[in-house]
Amino acid sequence: MNILASLFILLSSTAAIGEGAEVADIQPPAHPSPAVTASFALVTVGRIEKTDRKVRIRLEPKYEAGLLGLEGWSHVWVMYWFDRNDTPEKRSTLQVHPRGNPANPLTGVFATRSPVRPNLIALSLCRVVSVEQNLVEVEGIDAFDGTPVLDLKPFIPGPDTPQRAITTPVWAK
Amino acid sequence: MNILASLFILLSSTAAIGEGAEVADIQPPAHPSPAVTASFALVTVGRIEKTDRKVRIRLEPKYEAGLLGLEGWSHVWVMYWFDRNDTPEKRSTLQVHPRGNPANPLTGVFATRSPVRPNLIALSLCRVVSVEQNLVEVEGIDAFDGTPVLDLKPFIPGPDTPQRAITTPVWAK
Repeated sequence: MNILASLFILLSSTAAIGEGAEVADIQPPAHPSPAVTASFALVTVGRIEKTDRKVRIRLEPKYEAGLLGLEGWSHVWVMYWFDRNDTPEKRSTLQVHPRGNPANPLTGVFATRSPVRPNLIALSLCRVVSVEQNLVEVEGIDAFDGTPVLDLKPFIPGPDTPQRAITTPVWAK
Repeated sequence: MNILASLFILLSSTAAIGEGAEVADIQPPAHPSPAVTASFALVTVGRIEKTDRKVRIRLEPKYEAGLLGLEGWSHVWVMYWFDRNDTPEKRSTLQVHPRGNPANPLTGVFATRSPVRPNLIALSLCRVVSVEQNLVEVEGIDAFDGTPVLDLKPFIPGPDTPQRAITTPVWAK
């Protein structure tokens, strides 16, 4: 049996549990192919580790090889998961008052950096302080100790910098 | 039964299928709590739509409310899923020759923007051309038609711009 067939059975088995309606709340919407549905599983590649005034990303040892050459970059995007907000209610919130300030206009979550959104992926630009084995010390991340890390991507000046005029809403100025 | 209990059963039921070893290849690694493991399910909030020379993001209608106010931003980060690379082999690749060029040194995927990595999350900075109902026209994204979109986040100049000197490896210059 190949993996796609296995996953199809895995997903199909949800219905047999008898609590499928609850589980379905955080399943991806229906797609033409079970392969697409089945693929949206994230892995935790590491954790945020806060000690004193240092912030480090401790990668799972099995992912350490993925850091080769990171020390050549000054800045890295860190993607992590807002795990404390991982409830069906928070993942179905589509509008918020930005920065939790009721004086700011009600705004769609895709027009904010709200930690409450359908996919709880956080994005922070960090300076790379050091890379040693499976530990990356960074500056510029405001995440809780123990937060699951999903990905690191180097900051590349060209594609990561707007090439035309930047505008922002009044509340964000 | 609450949702976490349901998901725990869902994940536990994998073993009973008899093909658990294959499924386990793309399950998250073991965590102290089933709650953490169970939470890493992504939803598709929309799709990339390429027509002629336009690139649009077509949000699922149920997520349209999340776009309120996006037109006030000139640039947006688009996160999408490299669904064509969603195989256990590609998700376990940790080192590549950047840009597919064997002349570039073998580099950890976390030090590249390779579309082959443990979590297949892509990140592109796009200019917002227009926002109409559930359609966002953008410039600056190089994704296949039909690609699943995970999130939109506005570009905020302060936190999204390095505040100290930028360095990059030789291969990326």
